[in-house]
Amino acid sequence: VSEPIPFTGDPLDRAGNLRHDPAWVEHALASPEARFLPFWRLTVLTHASGPPGLLWLDAVQRQLAGDREVVLLGLMAGAPHFAIDVSDIEEPLSALSLSDGARFAEVREVATRLPPADSGTVAHARSLLDWHNRHRFCSTCGRPTRPGEGGGMRECQACGAQHFPRTDPVVIMVVWRGDSCLLGTRRNAAGAFYSALAGFIDQGESIEEAVRREVKEEAGVDVDEVVYHASQPWPFPSSLMIGCFAHAVSDETAVDAFELDNVRWFSRDEVRRAVASPNPELGFAVPGPVAIAHHLIKAWAELSEEELRTRWRLTREGA
Amino acid sequence: VSEPIPFTGDPLDRAGNLRHDPAWVEHALASPEARFLPFWRLTVLTHASGPPGLLWLDAVQRQLAGDREVVLLGLMAGAPHFAIDVSDIEEPLSALSLSDGARFAEVREVATRLPPADSGTVAHARSLLDWHNRHRFCSTCGRPTRPGEGGGMRECQACGAQHFPRTDPVVIMVVWRGDSCLLGTRRNAAGAFYSALAGFIDQGESIEEAVRREVKEEAGVDVDEVVYHASQPWPFPSSLMIGCFAHAVSDETAVDAFELDNVRWFSRDEVRRAVASPNPELGFAVPGPVAIAHHLIKAWAELSEEELRTRWRLTREGA
Repeated sequence: VSEPIPFTGDPLDRAGNLRHDPAWVEHALASPEARFLPFWRLTVLTHASGPPGLLWLDAVQRQLAGDREVVLLGLMAGAPHFAIDVSDIEEPLSALSLSDGARFAEVREVATRLPPADSGTVAHARSLLDWHNRHRFCSTCGRPTRPGEGGGMRECQACGAQHFPRTDPVVIMVVWRGDSCLLGTRRNAAGAFYSALAGFIDQGESIEEAVRREVKEEAGVDVDEVVYHASQPWPFPSSLMIGCFAHAVSDETAVDAFELDNVRWFSRDEVRRAVASPNPELGFAVPGPVAIAHHLIKAWAELSEEELRTRWRLTREGA
Repeated sequence: VSEPIPFTGDPLDRAGNLRHDPAWVEHALASPEARFLPFWRLTVLTHASGPPGLLWLDAVQRQLAGDREVVLLGLMAGAPHFAIDVSDIEEPLSALSLSDGARFAEVREVATRLPPADSGTVAHARSLLDWHNRHRFCSTCGRPTRPGEGGGMRECQACGAQHFPRTDPVVIMVVWRGDSCLLGTRRNAAGAFYSALAGFIDQGESIEEAVRREVKEEAGVDVDEVVYHASQPWPFPSSLMIGCFAHAVSDETAVDAFELDNVRWFSRDEVRRAVASPNPELGFAVPGPVAIAHHLIKAWAELSEEELRTRWRLTREGA
């Protein structure tokens, strides 16, 4: 995969082993080198002018945020980096003494304008903070939980159950046959916006089984060969998008009105033009580069049928 | 992948759309065609003699289990199939009027002896029942939840938050270099039992990033190319194992004592012999066919270095 996919590339060392030691976490938190990335209602602090970039608070600025829960994201050049949630402050910019040069930005909107590695850090932080916010109680017994391992888990104070941050695996697939691919448009989506079919992986399913089930459910199409292509963390709130090419056995479709408005076959040429630039004459658009759907659709459009068949033959051979 | 991987192949139609309609679910539950697979403390009901097979209760037998919560697994030939948890019955075999011909079996122990499709149904049911048991309270507000969509979700009766069954993506990888591969042995594992390295995918990580991080953390080894091979649902309690080949940049290792006792390079020939049969003379063993580790290690041992390099070249080309 030649272009970086947004939300990957977080350069922080997650300190998976060090964070088991509460004394080490306390020490990191008290370090004058510590940096803090504030989130306000799931928006992230960035510079308001110039090239977009994350705005980290230093240890002194962080005092202004008060004694809030923070989560350890990891280390960079030895300096501990944390995320801090300031959602309950009504006017966070003034409370943090930030000038007009700072703003809280929607993550999805700012992702492709940040340096690629920063979008990875933001994905990591946003998913983690949102998980903590929605897991303040134990799902086993209903009592309060408290964070441990620098925010790497939460523990029930009553029954002792340990809860770990959640990542939901999702399959997303370009279904193809010959020189065409099948894309779908969601109910209530604006205009003729077509994307790859997708759905959550269910319990007791492999990736390949989930692809076949979703394509059958959503479009009524049978798939035989499934080839993995690339993956992307998607922090809304915390999915792992698993991108595949899926070969359709037949052309006929039967759209599931519960999930989609329509599914349609597009030629490779139509898809190439839609990927290259938004083109009103085409009558449809595909997702932009923030989503793996864009990269998956683009990769399919650039591959020949022969190359796709070689990929799946190699996946089976010797296996 | 030529052999079926255990815990895949569930043949039930999950009825993803029909189950949105509570009236349809009620009707399915009352159907004389309905079948119920009992679980007792996460063990599954099977025939005690003859070839192992799942023992489904019919609608009449199910009455003996009382008015317990059930989860819809799906449809087969139009008949609704449910799982039912009878863990709170002290003597479930006698309560259900089952003869000596029935027993509750450990899922992991029975998996490879069941017909392959049955192991898929068991994986699905075990993960789902266990999730319900550990999510009777809302993680957002601490109040009780109740099941919806035939057991496809739970809803908080106080705050209305919807909770969906959880699947944890895990990367598992054979790290290789030239004609050798790197396997690890866990702390407290019995004997010299070596397996593929593995770990949970973290927030804000792609599959490939998680592979690189885990190999670096656990074995101190840098990885460049990562190639996806196959996946497996693992119902203990509910993981999705994502199997990859990972190419090591160097030979030197630095084992993480928190996770593993030792990591070691093995030759292709040693690995082939260990996969073929337990062989005390080799001085080490690899996992049996219930685990994707077995299939991944075996596939690596049967591939040449050239084939592996072709796979990764193809994954990058045109992408």
